[in-house]
Amino acid sequence: MVDLSADYRLKDVTIYEKWYKIEHKSPQFLKEAVYGLCEVNREKVKQARLVANPGCYTTCSILTAYPLIKEGLIDTETLIVDAKSGTSGAGRGAKLPNLFCEVNENMKAYGVAVHRHTPEIEEQLGYAAGKEMTISFTPHLVPMNRGILATEYASLKKKRQPDGSFSLPSYEEIKAVYDKYYDKEYFVRVLDQGVYPETKWVEGSNYVDIGFQIDERTGRIIMMGAIDNLVKGAAGQAVQNMNLMFGMEETEGLKLVPVFP
Amino acid sequence: MVDLSADYRLKDVTIYEKWYKIEHKSPQFLKEAVYGLCEVNREKVKQARLVANPGCYTTCSILTAYPLIKEGLIDTETLIVDAKSGTSGAGRGAKLPNLFCEVNENMKAYGVAVHRHTPEIEEQLGYAAGKEMTISFTPHLVPMNRGILATEYASLKKKRQPDGSFSLPSYEEIKAVYDKYYDKEYFVRVLDQGVYPETKWVEGSNYVDIGFQIDERTGRIIMMGAIDNLVKGAAGQAVQNMNLMFGMEETEGLKLVPVFP
Amino acid sequence: MVDLSADYRLKDVTIYEKWYKIEHKSPQFLKEAVYGLCEVNREKVKQARLVANPGCYTTCSILTAYPLIKEGLIDTETLIVDAKSGTSGAGRGAKLPNLFCEVNENMKAYGVAVHRHTPEIEEQLGYAAGKEMTISFTPHLVPMNRGILATEYASLKKKRQPDGSFSLPSYEEIKAVYDKYYDKEYFVRVLDQGVYPETKWVEGSNYVDIGFQIDERTGRIIMMGAIDNLVKGAAGQAVQNMNLMFGMEETEGLKLVPVFP
Amino acid sequence: MVDLSADYRLKDVTIYEKWYKIEHKSPQFLKEAVYGLCEVNREKVKQARLVANPGCYTTCSILTAYPLIKEGLIDTETLIVDAKSGTSGAGRGAKLPNLFCEVNENMKAYGVAVHRHTPEIEEQLGYAAGKEMTISFTPHLVPMNRGILATEYASLKKKRQPDGSFSLPSYEEIKAVYDKYYDKEYFVRVLDQGVYPETKWVEGSNYVDIGFQIDERTGRIIMMGAIDNLVKGAAGQAVQNMNLMFGMEETEGLKLVPVFP
Repeated sequence: MVDLSADYRLKDVTIYEKWYKIEHKSPQFLKEAVYGLCEVNREKVKQARLVANPGCYTTCSILTAYPLIKEGLIDTETLIVDAKSGTSGAGRGAKLPNLFCEVNENMKAYGVAVHRHTPEIEEQLGYAAGKEMTISFTPHLVPMNRGILATEYASLKKKRQPDGSFSLPSYEEIKAVYDKYYDKEYFVRVLDQGVYPETKWVEGSNYVDIGFQIDERTGRIIMMGAIDNLVKGAAGQAVQNMNLMFGMEETEGLKLVPVFP
Repeated sequence: MVDLSADYRLKDVTIYEKWYKIEHKSPQFLKEAVYGLCEVNREKVKQARLVANPGCYTTCSILTAYPLIKEGLIDTETLIVDAKSGTSGAGRGAKLPNLFCEVNENMKAYGVAVHRHTPEIEEQLGYAAGKEMTISFTPHLVPMNRGILATEYASLKKKRQPDGSFSLPSYEEIKAVYDKYYDKEYFVRVLDQGVYPETKWVEGSNYVDIGFQIDERTGRIIMMGAIDNLVKGAAGQAVQNMNLMFGMEETEGLKLVPVFP
Repeated sequence: MVDLSADYRLKDVTIYEKWYKIEHKSPQFLKEAVYGLCEVNREKVKQARLVANPGCYTTCSILTAYPLIKEGLIDTETLIVDAKSGTSGAGRGAKLPNLFCEVNENMKAYGVAVHRHTPEIEEQLGYAAGKEMTISFTPHLVPMNRGILATEYASLKKKRQPDGSFSLPSYEEIKAVYDKYYDKEYFVRVLDQGVYPETKWVEGSNYVDIGFQIDERTGRIIMMGAIDNLVKGAAGQAVQNMNLMFGMEETEGLKLVPVFP
Repeated sequence: MVDLSADYRLKDVTIYEKWYKIEHKSPQFLKEAVYGLCEVNREKVKQARLVANPGCYTTCSILTAYPLIKEGLIDTETLIVDAKSGTSGAGRGAKLPNLFCEVNENMKAYGVAVHRHTPEIEEQLGYAAGKEMTISFTPHLVPMNRGILATEYASLKKKRQPDGSFSLPSYEEIKAVYDKYYDKEYFVRVLDQGVYPETKWVEGSNYVDIGFQIDERTGRIIMMGAIDNLVKGAAGQAVQNMNLMFGMEETEGLKLVPVFP
């Protein structure tokens, strides 16, 4: 079973109940549930009976920062995720704030500091970091149908150089870390130097596009990731999980070319 | 003279030439030029012969954070500005990236870590802080005609409490600081608790709408500001400056009601 | 009283009840009600106690064709109005078809052959023609907030020439007819030859922009009119009516400059 | 060869040179060129060496009206095509009128009475009618990336009934005619009664969606057709033609599911 709800994404029932403000009805399945972010948990997904399909914001936010956190390159206390989403992320309910005239020619933040995808990102990146993480996560509504762009900020750890001084890692060092994790991933495309992802480049596809920029002046890295929230952020990833669970080719049914324009 | 170019915004020629990559042709006017952010420099503008009209991103970014920096409430090293702009900010040149089909249903960051409005924000906020500031500033292109939304992140300084412990300032304390600076400002509207600005609320007007959220978990404050980049971010502010320079009512010609929807 | 509902727009109760499918609750006011299309009924509006403010589609559709029908230049049997409207025309109700994701990147016709503005156009243009009219009217939903564009088709009557032959009226003859009716109208702008109206040119204003093209090949004239459905198509026209009723300057409060872009 | 230019679409060189205002450089190929509208010319395409791929507006306009014209149900003198297109139809040239801020929140007609797709529609529908046709064709620019919606108006011929009276054909009769031509067409979907096509329903696919409404009051039929201008209106149809020419399955590579939303 691939579950698209949030019910089995968080291991800790108290965190679930705090952020979702409802009682968990079936905590007995939490232990066996596997968090279905294929690029991170591939082997576990293959063995799983129950997969919790990740949220749209979380998929994008986690994959964009994962290699640098896993390799300990950034100061985990400093991670800030400023995310922007197309309106389909709000579902298809007939609600006033999602009417065309409310969304079109408009932009806003929402759920500031309280969005439910926050603990999901923190839990998964915490596993990568090997310690608890607390992040700032701010979602925004953008006048477009599909697409999530996550712009992530973190301070790079300075490295001791042979001469005893400390300096930021180079572009090549960062790129090598991304390549280590994603070079063989069919659905993750790390872009060339100076190229930043655009949501249009992944629209209708299961791709995750990632770019980054080191800011020497501030010592930060700005990481940017883009997905289609309805594909890699939802149904596409569910199919990817299903493929793994049933021993099929992971890309089966997912070799979709992005729609442009 | 109210100059809408960037030529007299930065006091330091070397910074200008570094970021704009051109030689400054008339540095002799820099000294007398007044940075025309009326809410900050009102008295100087009134006396000015030459006013440098601020950039669109800078107007929004500075005013959103100004009171907290002026009052020393945030750790200036931590300020990050994630800004989103409608496409009119790119001008009216017939360039491929600004075509409808490139922008519509799309979102991207650009000029990451190198955008020219960065030193302008740093200089002005530095004056408020009383020391040099270095910030991260990331502009994004949004599929809408008008509007800038700046989402700003900074660590709040903890305050020593009567019992000797340290804690974050309260909502009321932050609100009082905003009110101290903006309560009498016609064009700045500090929104109610839990309300965040939307670009549509200021479209076609000279207003700056500001909201904020304290994040107890991370110790950060998330500040959000919205302007119409073509009014408060350009022509409207120029008129506001002109009004001040010529002794007219500051709001003359600017009591525009936002267009909704 | 300026009534913005449809209740007093149609003089014939049976037509009202047929198209609106409800019983008319106050037919006793129908006789005195004046149809508030100022450019056509100015003198009557000045004397009116009750003004029926016209519909948005009807205002645009009627004014675009009115001079040619009044002067008998077109074959009234042939009039077809293909109208396109921004989504604010659908109101602010939280309905699925008006959600951003349903409207954006989409276009459709609706209410084909049954839209309630049809009899209103027919009645008013019928007065101008001096006989009953039956037209085709097709509204369309366009992914924009504001604006109506009406494209209208009609066969031009051929005129007997001095040499006994028959030919279509010239551009100059048509233009002269438009000028006869609209030259002194503040809110109607008849565009230059070869220029066709764009909804953006009237957005936020009370203007009606009109252009036309004679098609020698088919003997038809294509007339195009644009208004902002929320201003000249609703509240703006209501103010215009109020100004007339109360002996104020007709343009009072309405000298709004269109918003561009 | 499948040629996507307009060079071999019109059989008559003089008509080509009149509408395109350039000299035809290779008229010697005109005779053998087959107009590649597969649903109409399937057998000819199979034998063709040179196929002229139809224009986007023309594909939609022709297929929407073709069965009724072929069966003589409408008065061919009365056909009016009011077409609306997304902006990708204008190509990717860096031109001012195609900038985001010019197109967004805007709508306009263009090329009124002189658009080059007019003679193409006239020629092909003339073959179906068995006589020369002259139509009104008005293209409009819509703020969306993809999609064409053609709204077509024509007077239905009245039919003599058994009792000697004359009346309009019924819905069922019209539907039967559409079914006769399109029932076995994979890419043409004639919609249910009262359902009108939306461009979103065909976006990214090679489908043509068609709906219609009989207007008893005016004796007209309103026919509506929708395609994706970049698929059935361009590259998709080219592939469909290639498939036919090379003896492959006609749908090879074209079983694309529309993108929604």
